[in-house]
Amino acid sequence: MAQKPSIPKGTRDFGQREMAERNYIFDTIRSVFRTYGYQQIETPALENLSTLLGKYGDEGDKLLFRILNSGDAFSGIDYGQFRLEGDHYNSKALSLKVSEKGLRYDLTVPFARYVVQHQNDISFPFKRFQIQPVWRADRPQKGRYREFYQCDVDVIGSRSQVNELELVQIVDRVFTLLDVRVGIKINNRKVLTGLAEICGFPDKVVDITVAIDKLDKIGLGNVEAEMMEKGLTPEAVEVLRPVLLLSGTTAEKLAAMRALFGGGSVSGTVSETGLKGIDELEELFGLIEAAGIRHDVQIDLSLARGLNYYTGAIFEVKALDFPIGSICGGGRYDNLTGIFGLPDMSGVGISFGADRIYDVLKGLDKFPKDLGSATRLLFAVMGPEELRYVLPVAKALREEGVAVEIYPEATKLKKQFDYADRKSIPFISINGSSEMEAGTINLKNLETGEQKAFPAHETDQILSFIK
Amino acid sequence: MAQKPSIPKGTRDFGQREMAERNYIFDTIRSVFRTYGYQQIETPALENLSTLLGKYGDEGDKLLFRILNSGDAFSGIDYGQFRLEGDHYNSKALSLKVSEKGLRYDLTVPFARYVVQHQNDISFPFKRFQIQPVWRADRPQKGRYREFYQCDVDVIGSRSQVNELELVQIVDRVFTLLDVRVGIKINNRKVLTGLAEICGFPDKVVDITVAIDKLDKIGLGNVEAEMMEKGLTPEAVEVLRPVLLLSGTTAEKLAAMRALFGGGSVSGTVSETGLKGIDELEELFGLIEAAGIRHDVQIDLSLARGLNYYTGAIFEVKALDFPIGSICGGGRYDNLTGIFGLPDMSGVGISFGADRIYDVLKGLDKFPKDLGSATRLLFAVMGPEELRYVLPVAKALREEGVAVEIYPEATKLKKQFDYADRKSIPFISINGSSEMEAGTINLKNLETGEQKAFPAHETDQILSFIK
Repeated sequence: MAQKPSIPKGTRDFGQREMAERNYIFDTIRSVFRTYGYQQIETPALENLSTLLGKYGDEGDKLLFRILNSGDAFSGIDYGQFRLEGDHYNSKALSLKVSEKGLRYDLTVPFARYVVQHQNDISFPFKRFQIQPVWRADRPQKGRYREFYQCDVDVIGSRSQVNELELVQIVDRVFTLLDVRVGIKINNRKVLTGLAEICGFPDKVVDITVAIDKLDKIGLGNVEAEMMEKGLTPEAVEVLRPVLLLSGTTAEKLAAMRALFGGGSVSGTVSETGLKGIDELEELFGLIEAAGIRHDVQIDLSLARGLNYYTGAIFEVKALDFPIGSICGGGRYDNLTGIFGLPDMSGVGISFGADRIYDVLKGLDKFPKDLGSATRLLFAVMGPEELRYVLPVAKALREEGVAVEIYPEATKLKKQFDYADRKSIPFISINGSSEMEAGTINLKNLETGEQKAFPAHETDQILSFIK
Repeated sequence: MAQKPSIPKGTRDFGQREMAERNYIFDTIRSVFRTYGYQQIETPALENLSTLLGKYGDEGDKLLFRILNSGDAFSGIDYGQFRLEGDHYNSKALSLKVSEKGLRYDLTVPFARYVVQHQNDISFPFKRFQIQPVWRADRPQKGRYREFYQCDVDVIGSRSQVNELELVQIVDRVFTLLDVRVGIKINNRKVLTGLAEICGFPDKVVDITVAIDKLDKIGLGNVEAEMMEKGLTPEAVEVLRPVLLLSGTTAEKLAAMRALFGGGSVSGTVSETGLKGIDELEELFGLIEAAGIRHDVQIDLSLARGLNYYTGAIFEVKALDFPIGSICGGGRYDNLTGIFGLPDMSGVGISFGADRIYDVLKGLDKFPKDLGSATRLLFAVMGPEELRYVLPVAKALREEGVAVEIYPEATKLKKQFDYADRKSIPFISINGSSEMEAGTINLKNLETGEQKAFPAHETDQILSFIK
């Protein structure tokens, strides 16, 4: 009995049209990465669990796909030892017994592992990009997959803000080429640390940032109330109020923040870390101005992604004309490779969210129109003689790089026309005894109906008609 | 304590140079596939085990990488039930309990699954190609990996020999572009069946073929001895002798075989299947002659790959100037999708062995020389003013598609030159106050030592110097 075929939840097949559209996104991004001197690497889908475990928090460990050891995975194990109660067993401990490998969860940890493992072969600063699938045992839902591509660009081994600038330039160029209007928001983790310091609650960085993030939605009063719920004193809230009321140009905002961190707040506390953050932002925005960026770039002090690992710049990119979350994000991390024994390597990177960018281009109808129709010309076939007649013509066109098909069976012409129609092939060529006698190739434009014959050996003339 | 990072046995990291070389192979193959109207698809790495199990024989089942179910994989299982003796457990049965998904083992079964699952959205004949990694829990050894790319092209839904011809043309074109001399060998499963039929041992196809395959190595007498060891009678061996002595042109070989299958052998037995095989080979070689193939194409009656599934043409391609196994292989299968409930779909395909083709190109030194050096020009940086001065120049060059880097730190020039050297960057630009005053960009060819200055805004002149 034949089974009805299906694929696991949260995974996808990509047909020809989706592939063409996805390749358009990847090719565009890749071409921009290359013009900035970033080099492509690939790492294996299988990594040792010792490389992956503990790098993504407890929640991440649970979402790793683990591979059963091959061979006799289950022999020699004392199952009683893992029994908890009744039929329940300690899955975490047992799975470590029967599994030593897992599937790549992101591209960042394998990149860190790669840098440490190959450090003697790498020229630092090392600029790499990587476009590969990752796997997460997340609950599948709309827009969230268990297997999806990530598209990361990182440079490691340089603390210069020129790197941050180049990432902003890359984002700017990619979305210019894709014809999508985006807003780029930039924050700096040191500024967030500085805010927590000057208000006297250095351990409440996350709470403070999360509250500030809601300013647009819930208003000043509610943000301040939330901060107090989280344990801040009224005095601390008062210190932060000027930040919440911050307005003006980027330069004015930076100047105001510099004054606050320099001791000008109600608390009078100086934050060296906050000042360092302002230095970095000032340098970066100076470079951005010198380089010229088409898209909107703003400081956003509430931007709080990756607070657990970013130590400097934080980036987020959103599409302005399509309602979806961030389509790009990243930041600077000062000790990514420390976990693998190579300390003091500062890096900065961003990740392009291919699936969301796909949805944006689809939603805004921004894919080029001719991506789907790969084949330009179909030779309809009426018999073995006609087939042999067109073989050299098809070959010559293919060697010029044009996609040409020969219908493989001498069936009814209706069926062959249908095939051209379903595959959106724009030209058809039907040749019988009269063409063979005259040594010509008959071509028809299926859209306009225009029909024309050319000498069979005049590849250039045929090319110019079907191009 | 930091761990020493490593990757699982049988997997590989690919650095920038290998990526460039591998992409050169894949891009070449892909571009040829496209000119024949083949369309790219991708399927998920994760497949349901029900899709994979039983498709590759018992040995294949053992080599599948299985994914542990996420969540409480080990709870609710009565382990005693699976105990064999002592600490030994029935791994096969237990792994089915804790695992429902596996990693793709090849691209053929997922392709069959795809065709059946999407049959209503597909135009037949369906021409697809697929370039993705596969995983096998094989014992790793030199040249055999547990994770490697396959590169498959198949057409399904047409019995015409035009499809076989196109696959031969694709092989011919790919290796012409890669500049590797290859020999293409073709056999037909029906001919092998016919041989077994006329000698009276229709169930010994594999034994007979394996013996014939050794003719070049061990000689006629030993081949005949081996056939008799396998149970053939002296009379049967006598029937096959003319086949072993077959010589002459392809046309002569086909004519001789046709006579044998038509009742002209010592046994006098007629094999309709054998005659059908000769019909197919004759048609295919006629088309090959009409199309014109550069590489050597031969009939090889001992070619016996994929005897378990191929039903018509069998292909094998070897490099003529480099000692390695086959670098390409394939054939026709008449019922690939039957296992998933779609009967009577005939298909034919070939697979390019990317890793072996890589070894051939490496061994014959056939990779283009400029693949490794991605970046054309490095702007050395001496200070913040100089940096800002070159930013717009670098941007203009990048928008022309040229890979340009700006060294991110204003360190010693020696260090910046070293960076250019290690990354094989052919041009460097060093600009100080005199260039800034003159509004020029100074360029140096690091190979020839030639040095020249251009107006900073003359992008075209700069381009023509560094191209």
